[in-house]
Amino acid sequence: MDKRLYQVISWLQNEQLDMAMIHSSTNVYYLTQFMCEPHERFLGLFIFPHAEPFLICPLLDVDKAQDSGWSYTVIGYDDVENPWEIVRNEVRKRLPNRQIRIAIEKERVSYARVEQLTQVIASNEIVSIDEEINKWRLIKTDQEIDWMREAARLADYGVEIGMNFLKKGCTEMEVLGQIELELKKKGIEGMAFDTMVLFGEKSALPHGTPGLRELNKGDMVLFDLGVKWKGYCSDITRTVAFGTIDEKQQEIYEVVLQAQLEALNHCKPDIRVGNLDQAARSVIEEAGYGKYFTHRVGHGLGMELHEYPSLNATNENLLQVGMTFTIEPGIYIPNLCGVRIEDDVVITTTGYETLTSFPKELQVIC
Amino acid sequence: MDKRLYQVISWLQNEQLDMAMIHSSTNVYYLTQFMCEPHERFLGLFIFPHAEPFLICPLLDVDKAQDSGWSYTVIGYDDVENPWEIVRNEVRKRLPNRQIRIAIEKERVSYARVEQLTQVIASNEIVSIDEEINKWRLIKTDQEIDWMREAARLADYGVEIGMNFLKKGCTEMEVLGQIELELKKKGIEGMAFDTMVLFGEKSALPHGTPGLRELNKGDMVLFDLGVKWKGYCSDITRTVAFGTIDEKQQEIYEVVLQAQLEALNHCKPDIRVGNLDQAARSVIEEAGYGKYFTHRVGHGLGMELHEYPSLNATNENLLQVGMTFTIEPGIYIPNLCGVRIEDDVVITTTGYETLTSFPKELQVIC
Repeated sequence: MDKRLYQVISWLQNEQLDMAMIHSSTNVYYLTQFMCEPHERFLGLFIFPHAEPFLICPLLDVDKAQDSGWSYTVIGYDDVENPWEIVRNEVRKRLPNRQIRIAIEKERVSYARVEQLTQVIASNEIVSIDEEINKWRLIKTDQEIDWMREAARLADYGVEIGMNFLKKGCTEMEVLGQIELELKKKGIEGMAFDTMVLFGEKSALPHGTPGLRELNKGDMVLFDLGVKWKGYCSDITRTVAFGTIDEKQQEIYEVVLQAQLEALNHCKPDIRVGNLDQAARSVIEEAGYGKYFTHRVGHGLGMELHEYPSLNATNENLLQVGMTFTIEPGIYIPNLCGVRIEDDVVITTTGYETLTSFPKELQVIC
Repeated sequence: MDKRLYQVISWLQNEQLDMAMIHSSTNVYYLTQFMCEPHERFLGLFIFPHAEPFLICPLLDVDKAQDSGWSYTVIGYDDVENPWEIVRNEVRKRLPNRQIRIAIEKERVSYARVEQLTQVIASNEIVSIDEEINKWRLIKTDQEIDWMREAARLADYGVEIGMNFLKKGCTEMEVLGQIELELKKKGIEGMAFDTMVLFGEKSALPHGTPGLRELNKGDMVLFDLGVKWKGYCSDITRTVAFGTIDEKQQEIYEVVLQAQLEALNHCKPDIRVGNLDQAARSVIEEAGYGKYFTHRVGHGLGMELHEYPSLNATNENLLQVGMTFTIEPGIYIPNLCGVRIEDDVVITTTGYETLTSFPKELQVIC
């Protein structure tokens, strides 16, 4: 039996739980290698400590489930069947008819789904499996890191495409579309999130929306993008200057770069996670820009764009070999410019490796 | 006060509820015109029958909330603050300290969020507001239909771009990237979902994944794409022939087209929703392809790609003026080809209007 599935079963046995329902596309993929986006339809992987698991998915996706290598029962339902009736019958086959203790992904499953579940399966206790799965997913295998390295390499390429495409008068959306086109030609599964290309004063909006703003000399240009490769995400940010930028903008760039390097310097096993945010923040605060660094220094990265560990200053956990996350300090001066520099990082026995490798010295495009 | 917000307040008053927590990005946008994608961070709109509403969002997004025209309290929190403490304090200011009846979006909020809410706010009953909001959103205003018309027009353009770009040896991803590039140049907010361009036997996979499959003469090509415009989605599917296709494929195309037209013929006020699926399905069944039409005939469309009404055969509701949805029958023959034809439709007093208008007669690209 697959090691990951066995991990769930062992945990259910240790915790004396009767069943786990895994419902999120990502965790179903993690445990079965079956990637399914059922939209509002129901997808469920049911795992038991002493019986065979089963998978239920829309009829449309049954072939894909079988092709992905899932060797246990898979049940498809069509748009007029009630999947919960199927769940009731399948669970009854596997468990005696009594109140049971169920593990669910409390953070990932809707309140309504849990109500539906407990209407067909009598339960006397519902516990969360999120923490456990997040912990298993926290440390990546060599295979996962290889996929992330490839995703990061493609993100580097995306920045390169975008940078080379900049010319006076082009729009944010045009550059963004060109980046995505070239990446898609390489056969990526998709972008990991909505690509951001922001010009000039718009780069000061950490969650800005690209549009038809045209590029002018003297603008900073912020690229924030990532791809999905074998289900794993990359996430890179680079900020470049289009033409000559003023001294203040240059100073901001240098402060962010020093902050990013300082956080990277702290990346090694057994360092407190929160120290990374503090390291970057100290540099920015000392330069007098503290109030313009309005977010944590980074986030865990893997199958999801934002996962464990969260790199906020209060995270007391320790870095471990195989953890993967972003380091991305930024300074955002309203109506002037924003600078953010972001790498994807994996913790190694000797320190860290950056998976992204696009140059970080200020690039001035003429 | 805005009409939509007032609708919630009236409903709370009628149902004798003490508070509603709106948490999904889409419904927050619907009620406030503030579009926020907080990722795993918390976003909440709290509405009371007899007190002022408040909005809580990541600090990063506070400016955007204010710019969007939200004129009541908005509270930002940073990455080291606990938003639930803020919620506790703000709710206490507005409600006496007692057990309250709360409305939440049961279908859209995670089980964990509800646990967090009920840890800070003592509640003796939790009811769902989903049905109410879905009902309000079901009938579109003229403004919403105008936005959807524009989104549909851009989807038509996307198909045109893709069709014109087909040439022997090009890959699915290359065509897909080109479509998205041209649409992004037009300033769309983004694609409404992952664009699908599938060649030949891959078109038989209703949830197939575009890749580096190259185009050959005799392939069917299936495009399924849509854009977001002012927060509203379009969704079009067209299937075209690249070079001469065999008679069986031509027959399949004609059957799907007749099925689609037959379903459209039933689109008028006071017709049972389920009849549309039955109308299309009868045509396909009579032609002997019933078992290859493996999904419902369509889905509601609006701010979300899939919303009310669901166009499955068992839906007993009646069509009403202002409802918007897709009509998209398909036939999928494994290892041969798939054909799907999809339009976006709005119900009018006299019948219907198709928002998408790309030609539907079989296009043969030479």
